Amino acid sequence: HYASATEQAGYITPVPGGVGPMTVAMTSGPLDHQHVLSRINKLNLQGCWVLITLNVCVQNTVLSAKRFLETHQPGKWNISYTKLNLQKPVPSDIVISRSCVPKPVDRLAKEVGLLSDEVELYGKTKAKVQLNIVKRLQAQPDGKYVVVTGITPTPLGEGKSTTTIGLVQALGAHMKLNVFACVRQPSQGPTFGIKGGAAGGGYSQVIPMEEFNLHLTGDIHAITAANNLVAAAIDARMFHESTQSDKALYNRLVPLSGGQRKFSPIQLNRLKKLGIEKTDPSALTEEEITRFARLDMDPSSVTWQRVLDTNDRFLRKITIGQSPTEKGYTREAQFDITVASEIMAVLALTSSLEDMRQRLAKMVVATSRNGEPITTEDLGVSGALTVLMKDAIKPNLMQTLEGTPVFVHAGPFANIAHGNSSILADKIALKLVGPEGFVVTEAGFGADIGMEKFFNIKCRYSGLRPHVVVLVATVRALKMHGGGPTVTAGMPLPKEYVEENLELLENGCSNMRKQIENAKHFGVPVVVAVNGFKTDTEAELDLVCRMAKAAGAFDAVRCSHWAEGGAGAVALGQAVQRASEAPSNFKFLYDLELPIADKIRIIAQKIYGADDIELLPEAQHKVELYTKQGFGGLPICMAKTHLSLSHEADKKGVPTGFILPIRDIRASVGAGFLFPLVGTMPTIPGLPTRPCFYDIDLDPETEQVNGLF
Amino acid sequence: HYASATEQAGYITPVPGGVGPMTVAMTSGPLDHQHVLSRINKLNLQGCWVLITLNVCVQNTVLSAKRFLETHQPGKWNISYTKLNLQKPVPSDIVISRSCVPKPVDRLAKEVGLLSDEVELYGKTKAKVQLNIVKRLQAQPDGKYVVVTGITPTPLGEGKSTTTIGLVQALGAHMKLNVFACVRQPSQGPTFGIKGGAAGGGYSQVIPMEEFNLHLTGDIHAITAANNLVAAAIDARMFHESTQSDKALYNRLVPLSGGQRKFSPIQLNRLKKLGIEKTDPSALTEEEITRFARLDMDPSSVTWQRVLDTNDRFLRKITIGQSPTEKGYTREAQFDITVASEIMAVLALTSSLEDMRQRLAKMVVATSRNGEPITTEDLGVSGALTVLMKDAIKPNLMQTLEGTPVFVHAGPFANIAHGNSSILADKIALKLVGPEGFVVTEAGFGADIGMEKFFNIKCRYSGLRPHVVVLVATVRALKMHGGGPTVTAGMPLPKEYVEENLELLENGCSNMRKQIENAKHFGVPVVVAVNGFKTDTEAELDLVCRMAKAAGAFDAVRCSHWAEGGAGAVALGQAVQRASEAPSNFKFLYDLELPIADKIRIIAQKIYGADDIELLPEAQHKVELYTKQGFGGLPICMAKTHLSLSHEADKKGVPTGFILPIRDIRASVGAGFLFPLVGTMPTIPGLPTRPCFYDIDLDPETEQVNGLF
Repeated sequence: HYASATEQAGYITPVPGGVGPMTVAMTSGPLDHQHVLSRINKLNLQGCWVLITLNVCVQNTVLSAKRFLETHQPGKWNISYTKLNLQKPVPSDIVISRSCVPKPVDRLAKEVGLLSDEVELYGKTKAKVQLNIVKRLQAQPDGKYVVVTGITPTPLGEGKSTTTIGLVQALGAHMKLNVFACVRQPSQGPTFGIKGGAAGGGYSQVIPMEEFNLHLTGDIHAITAANNLVAAAIDARMFHESTQSDKALYNRLVPLSGGQRKFSPIQLNRLKKLGIEKTDPSALTEEEITRFARLDMDPSSVTWQRVLDTNDRFLRKITIGQSPTEKGYTREAQFDITVASEIMAVLALTSSLEDMRQRLAKMVVATSRNGEPITTEDLGVSGALTVLMKDAIKPNLMQTLEGTPVFVHAGPFANIAHGNSSILADKIALKLVGPEGFVVTEAGFGADIGMEKFFNIKCRYSGLRPHVVVLVATVRALKMHGGGPTVTAGMPLPKEYVEENLELLENGCSNMRKQIENAKHFGVPVVVAVNGFKTDTEAELDLVCRMAKAAGAFDAVRCSHWAEGGAGAVALGQAVQRASEAPSNFKFLYDLELPIADKIRIIAQKIYGADDIELLPEAQHKVELYTKQGFGGLPICMAKTHLSLSHEADKKGVPTGFILPIRDIRASVGAGFLFPLVGTMPTIPGLPTRPCFYDIDLDPETEQVNGLF
Repeated sequence: HYASATEQAGYITPVPGGVGPMTVAMTSGPLDHQHVLSRINKLNLQGCWVLITLNVCVQNTVLSAKRFLETHQPGKWNISYTKLNLQKPVPSDIVISRSCVPKPVDRLAKEVGLLSDEVELYGKTKAKVQLNIVKRLQAQPDGKYVVVTGITPTPLGEGKSTTTIGLVQALGAHMKLNVFACVRQPSQGPTFGIKGGAAGGGYSQVIPMEEFNLHLTGDIHAITAANNLVAAAIDARMFHESTQSDKALYNRLVPLSGGQRKFSPIQLNRLKKLGIEKTDPSALTEEEITRFARLDMDPSSVTWQRVLDTNDRFLRKITIGQSPTEKGYTREAQFDITVASEIMAVLALTSSLEDMRQRLAKMVVATSRNGEPITTEDLGVSGALTVLMKDAIKPNLMQTLEGTPVFVHAGPFANIAHGNSSILADKIALKLVGPEGFVVTEAGFGADIGMEKFFNIKCRYSGLRPHVVVLVATVRALKMHGGGPTVTAGMPLPKEYVEENLELLENGCSNMRKQIENAKHFGVPVVVAVNGFKTDTEAELDLVCRMAKAAGAFDAVRCSHWAEGGAGAVALGQAVQRASEAPSNFKFLYDLELPIADKIRIIAQKIYGADDIELLPEAQHKVELYTKQGFGGLPICMAKTHLSLSHEADKKGVPTGFILPIRDIRASVGAGFLFPLVGTMPTIPGLPTRPCFYDIDLDPETEQVNGLF
């Protein structure tokens, strides 16, 4: 073929941890990584840098190798950073985002050591990374692992994502370290609702921000499709069981085809679960046929909800099945926001395709009338779910404004979900950056919510141990905790927040102190990042830093990355680097073997500062049910407001003297946690009178997106 | 950068219609198509072939040019076909699909004349084509345009997609003509429900079939998101209007920000519609404020439904808003399958980004209490919809088993939607194949449904005129029309269908005769493709061909592309090529200026064979409403069963003596048609007792999808 010569590109394979460079120049024909990799293995290059350049143009190879030797440091990526052109006043996020031309994502992929056949491009600025890289880099040592969390935020957010991006821009473009940010894919609901985009902000953003905030590569859409296939399967199955005899059901479930009946592999799994050791459909007894064919789900026990990634408040409570075709089998149901789906949690917590297949099969959707948990595997839908999620499991590669790499994968909504990005993205990034590099991952909302779940759930499943906690604080939020007036999205800030007020601020530092203590429960050094706003005074910023250090923070640093990009977070980067060398002594907050109520109580008392918990009747019933069903040993994923350490959103600072009411508990058996509901929390947001979408439009000439922020 | 030399690939730019080849070899630096294109323009190469090879390796350019001159015919693509390795018996679709290694899609893109920066890769086997190509190829003459339709099908389908793919494989890989298939993206609902995949079948398939049948590049997911944002906006708006004074509404819709109120551009559009020529929010009178802020939608008039791409029968009729947070504002609503969304129709019928923006703004969602149509623009959501659909508008490039190109874009469900693939895909393909080439596009279900809509709606909006209609017939379906027993999906075929029965067959040819007549109403030559099954006898196949020719078909040809790939459809390809040279005299079936009822009556009488129509009261009311609202001039998109020429699915052959009942009419003002509902039709399918998903699974080791068919 005429173009075959030019289809062969040069690739750099970094084998981090290097002691010196080595060049393997090959002038072979077609690109064959397997072959190359096996040769590298034979050369036993552990700890070295390897340059692989495959090209029929020999002089190119020589040139590339020469340039490589000139520019590479062992262990250090050969990455080009993007220079910011800082404007004052800082323009809107979308204006900044589109003023920067992102590097082609295939180039970025090469720069961070990905092989071309490990990368699937999605347009010019997004790519998926295939999981076979996990195997290739298995033996490499991990980089340093940093988690970003925050104090209890105002409804406006305190810039945690912005700080995450600012920090990696500092570590990468300014301190020249290998660094990856691992962030969560935002939900589209709030993007068009009240919150706007979530790609960071100002000069610390993931770009292109419209790609980040819209469909990305379709992961959340895949979750919607998979989640709702389960929901449809549940109601259809209950309907068919209600309207058919055991015999008719069985004949349809195991139909004659070409004169034969055969169980599908998924049906054989159900038989095994039932203890029926037969593989011939004609050999089942009548009693076995009934047990096999009738899941006998109790409609009132169905915990699986439909989902949409839309802020549609009218779906919070609905009645379904009212068409005459459903013959009167109506029931009450609800839609949640897609990111609250158990499948999102599975995606975030899984470690491989095989593991995801197993988790998707273990998800419990209801209880049978005789008390057995009914799973997606019993419904026969687990394989289809895996097929629907086969691309979503691959982390998405994007970049920051300054050209450092970002994985965007899974997980927002830390109040009603666990709110962390994926284990797979973190693990792959830790290999790619190498032992001198950094991976900065983000846990949603305050340290009482996202960080607690990060440690007790995500780190438990990943086996990873973070080196540093970065706790983001703002003068604005601390003043609110000190007794400042209510802060409402879309309304102007009261004057307390735009004028110096050291008294309010000092009072409010109690919340920061408590969140530092929360992080220290886990034995990891804490660096406080004070995310500066232009109305903050010197005295205010100083006060916060002093209070943070007094409360036991390893360090506390002022940052201005929103206005200045990575340059505004270099001090933070240096503090993080120092903290990562400090001794740490990681420990979990609770043992899994404790009774369910004890685990909940430990979180409530140690993290939230509650006096005790109260299990309301439905929760008490679930404690007994889940213990009996064998799910008592799972970790806990609290669904609690993010706006207070307590369960009441308007209690600011450090509330004390309260009893935490546990209204109900759900089991996410596939994801692997129990899910206590603290009070009533809407699980799908609504649209305000004037949603964000009023300002969002596309210029048909330039194809530019306007109005996203 | 070390890799820059190898980032420069060679590209072939076909300028179809060639009189001779010409080589422009450039040895410049970075790839700059703008620059290259402007040089080509200066050379005034209209009607020539141009080879552009950009590479720093000069010897490569020379080699490529030499090979190009050896292998290229003017106007003919330099495309490599994939050789089939035919097995007997024919394996399952997924086994065949994955036994073929697809060409890398970037190579395919080059082969058919796409420039690298016109293509956005989505992994290795799918790509989106950017719309700027429309401008680049503006002056090129179109290829021949072929539409594939069918007789009234059995519930099993008669192989229309398979014939479409078999035909292009014949025209391309065997007859060496430039050819594109333009097919519809399947809905995921049926893939996991009862129907299975829809990528053709046997040795005539789009590959990889699992990519085709699953998320593809997310177009349908984008429609779900956009559609449901509108739905959420409608209910939220009605809620906020019900619970707020005019003044409060206005203050929230046009909020103070930095001491100023400002209308967004979308709000200025609404003011214009209301005839209020003011741009200063403080200048509106109280009466104007009320008219602006209060859409005053009548809840019972809402025609916009929520959608999911899932077979979820329990959502056919629901009650929404039952959570206490919605304060008792409940109403009845429903979910449709996503592909029935008006936004899907907009996607299929639009001609540009600008046109799509306008159509998405014109969609009518409800009527106000004083009779005004309320649009998505009034809701302020039209810009956001365009942003959500900005990638979906780009056609998706895939390939057949034999390596010919396929556009997959928009539109299944021809019974409840218009069921045709996109105008943009057809138009781009017609330019790419050039005047000697062919574009084969597919219209859903029988000629009474998809083809009628193809001509009267799609061709009206596109301005394109087809050269040939291919009408697919099977012995099986014709026997059913001749009085054979009922055919049910998932059940074994009665013996009438697997043994020779010339009498049933001859009787049933009445349906084929009528559908030939239907095609001939539009003045286009008809080629009948008799899609052979292994149980068909020689005498049966001969009889169908004879009857077809007697009924006025230009030709009638037996095909065996399911078992043999393109080789089995060469005779069909040759007949199509001959027919494309025959004189044609295209005409529409009705004038748009006729009253709504007359247009419906013409379709009912001329196409379905009805005696007359009956407008039931709701339909009569809508005729009056839409005529008054100014929508009377739109074409008609009938929602009718595809299983009979009449409205009753069990009436086979050519039903006569019936009155077609029109239950209701909807207006898809953005898409541009009125949508009469004939009888009651479920607009979201359900899951059977044993859905397809029981067999679908992923092998975690090989990452292969099993069980799709």
